[in-house]
Amino acid sequence: MDPQLLTRELHVKNDSKIVMLVADGLGGLPIEPGGRTELETAHTPHLDALARRGVLGGSIPVFPGIAPGSGPGHLGLFGYDPIKYLIGRGALEATGIGFELTSRDVAVRCNFCTVDAAGKIVDRRAGRIPTEESAPLAIKLRQVKIDGVEIFVEPVQEHRFVVVFRADGLGDNVNDTDPQKTGVAPLTPVGDDDASQKTARAAAEFFRQATALLSGEKNANCLTMRGFSARPSLPSYEEVYGLRAAAIAVYPMYKGLASLAGMTVVGQAKSLADQVDVLERHWKDFDFFFLHFKYTDSTGEDGNFSAKVKRIEEFDAIMPRVEKLKPTVLIVTGDHSTPSAMRSHSWHPVPTLLVSDICRPDACQSFGESECVRGGLGQFKAKYLMTLALANAGRMGKYGA
Amino acid sequence: MDPQLLTRELHVKNDSKIVMLVADGLGGLPIEPGGRTELETAHTPHLDALARRGVLGGSIPVFPGIAPGSGPGHLGLFGYDPIKYLIGRGALEATGIGFELTSRDVAVRCNFCTVDAAGKIVDRRAGRIPTEESAPLAIKLRQVKIDGVEIFVEPVQEHRFVVVFRADGLGDNVNDTDPQKTGVAPLTPVGDDDASQKTARAAAEFFRQATALLSGEKNANCLTMRGFSARPSLPSYEEVYGLRAAAIAVYPMYKGLASLAGMTVVGQAKSLADQVDVLERHWKDFDFFFLHFKYTDSTGEDGNFSAKVKRIEEFDAIMPRVEKLKPTVLIVTGDHSTPSAMRSHSWHPVPTLLVSDICRPDACQSFGESECVRGGLGQFKAKYLMTLALANAGRMGKYGA
Repeated sequence: MDPQLLTRELHVKNDSKIVMLVADGLGGLPIEPGGRTELETAHTPHLDALARRGVLGGSIPVFPGIAPGSGPGHLGLFGYDPIKYLIGRGALEATGIGFELTSRDVAVRCNFCTVDAAGKIVDRRAGRIPTEESAPLAIKLRQVKIDGVEIFVEPVQEHRFVVVFRADGLGDNVNDTDPQKTGVAPLTPVGDDDASQKTARAAAEFFRQATALLSGEKNANCLTMRGFSARPSLPSYEEVYGLRAAAIAVYPMYKGLASLAGMTVVGQAKSLADQVDVLERHWKDFDFFFLHFKYTDSTGEDGNFSAKVKRIEEFDAIMPRVEKLKPTVLIVTGDHSTPSAMRSHSWHPVPTLLVSDICRPDACQSFGESECVRGGLGQFKAKYLMTLALANAGRMGKYGA
Repeated sequence: MDPQLLTRELHVKNDSKIVMLVADGLGGLPIEPGGRTELETAHTPHLDALARRGVLGGSIPVFPGIAPGSGPGHLGLFGYDPIKYLIGRGALEATGIGFELTSRDVAVRCNFCTVDAAGKIVDRRAGRIPTEESAPLAIKLRQVKIDGVEIFVEPVQEHRFVVVFRADGLGDNVNDTDPQKTGVAPLTPVGDDDASQKTARAAAEFFRQATALLSGEKNANCLTMRGFSARPSLPSYEEVYGLRAAAIAVYPMYKGLASLAGMTVVGQAKSLADQVDVLERHWKDFDFFFLHFKYTDSTGEDGNFSAKVKRIEEFDAIMPRVEKLKPTVLIVTGDHSTPSAMRSHSWHPVPTLLVSDICRPDACQSFGESECVRGGLGQFKAKYLMTLALANAGRMGKYGA
């Protein structure tokens, strides 16, 4: 069920404010039998107080057992069915650096790599070349010219850059050229249909000219391409929810995801404190605020349990400032779990809390995975969280007479 | 997932009896922080005893965050996917006053309104004209005659009445003529297809003749039309469940909804005690009994917490008589929540209890929202309740070999 089929028709407007605080990869695992998770270990007096006032539950990003990437993880939280809407890696990466894709574009995530004299890959990441060296090389590749296709090359970080092909009738069903291993040459791009063949031909020509331009380089003398993808077409927050929505993020990826959903990216925050400043400053301008905190995920990916605990405590500390704004609905959740024990995204339900005057509080006493199991929201698919948010904000009309 | 796709194939017959007691709008909210809901406040010794013997859970009428009207609320409880089956406002209103729609009918909910000399609406509800004045006017409109179309006009309450057009080949894709604002004339009805154009022409002619008949009136000198709708086509209880089903309700709306599902409306009950009399009297004649209690909803809609508490206690008091009949499966639930704190239908999960010899009892000790959170049924979509009822009655075969 796509919840937006109903929210699109049923939403109403009022003066309420909804705040969704997303601690990326929030959910975790204990690292010893009978132990506590990162969230349960952290000292989180403010989140615990909110848990006592609100209602808890476990958010299932896609369906049980599915660990999502950042794209589907956030789309779910934003109320877009993550099975129906999938954002390709190229489009996600372009979006992540603030490149505004048009409907004529196909975006590709590229890696600089190192090949030997025989053209076989010896390092898939070009020795993790630093950004200071890779960025000028990416810019150098703007010299590539292809008849009838506009080309944009944008540096990202380290070995990564983005190429966007712009022309009429470009398809995105093109294979990755990254063979995912060393000792072999990059693969040839092939399109699955006529439109994608046109893209594949442009990609092959790009590869030919680019490798010529890179031929003198020691490390970054070649490239691979992944995730050919067109701009995803998402209905906007205004359209499906009637919300003027703002996104407050530090990392470009999350700004990009939010902007695909029609949110306005506000501020130039570099830290969590900055982000709350931006929230305060724009409080009157929007109905909905998405605030993204990255470091609960990155510490989980690093396998650093205690660092993740500290990041959660840092996140807890902003709650008083957020509460002072008196949001009608305050939600704290994550886009997925990233247990430091696993060093990766996981499928485990994400601890979620929702506070509003009409949320029907449950008996939970603190914010943590075990308490969420007995929360009043039960376990629910992430895609329903926005419908719950709207309902708690008094922004949903009745379905049917 | 439409549960009837399986129940239709898998149901078997036996001598079991299923009783579904529906307290309309049963779920509620506390009215002070840390307080109890209406159901938790009420003294309900019999429901609590049933809760100890049975299994509890929270019924989600449609999906999280969606507050349903009476139509989708009951369709869900009856096992009809409320997204797949939607009853139009005209058909629901006709059903609500006991008008038996045929497959040749299109029903329309009409409002008397007031227009100025230029034909522009100045009051969309004709000054909320009292029923004593509006009913004779509705009956006067029975003078309207249209070639080839039978017309029924039925008074409802205050400014509301129902018109039913009956003929072969009438469609119901016709716009509302209520412009939803004053200062403009009622809109012209237009059909989206040939069949609906036929209805629209009849509606336009009805409007012409009716406004002529109303021309001398001070307040109710015009009308608007909303929710053109044909009789919804629902498979019957016999067809999808193999159940001979009886409905025992006081209000016409719920008799009508049950009859759309193929239930037989029995008795002329005016009170809850009457309804139990009817249940006892017809015990041998049916396999399934739907008993509807209205006042838990109406007191909630009035915002009267203590009156809702009393109504719940009144409802509790009939349990011994129902139990004495020894139903194989006894279900107590509601079609949605109506917290008196909100004075409206809400999306909150509805406290639900099911008792049978094979229900797998849980640890719950009383019947209330908080206990239901930790109940053995978990949170489930209302549309699955009938499948659970059939299973507990031994009326469901195995799916697949």
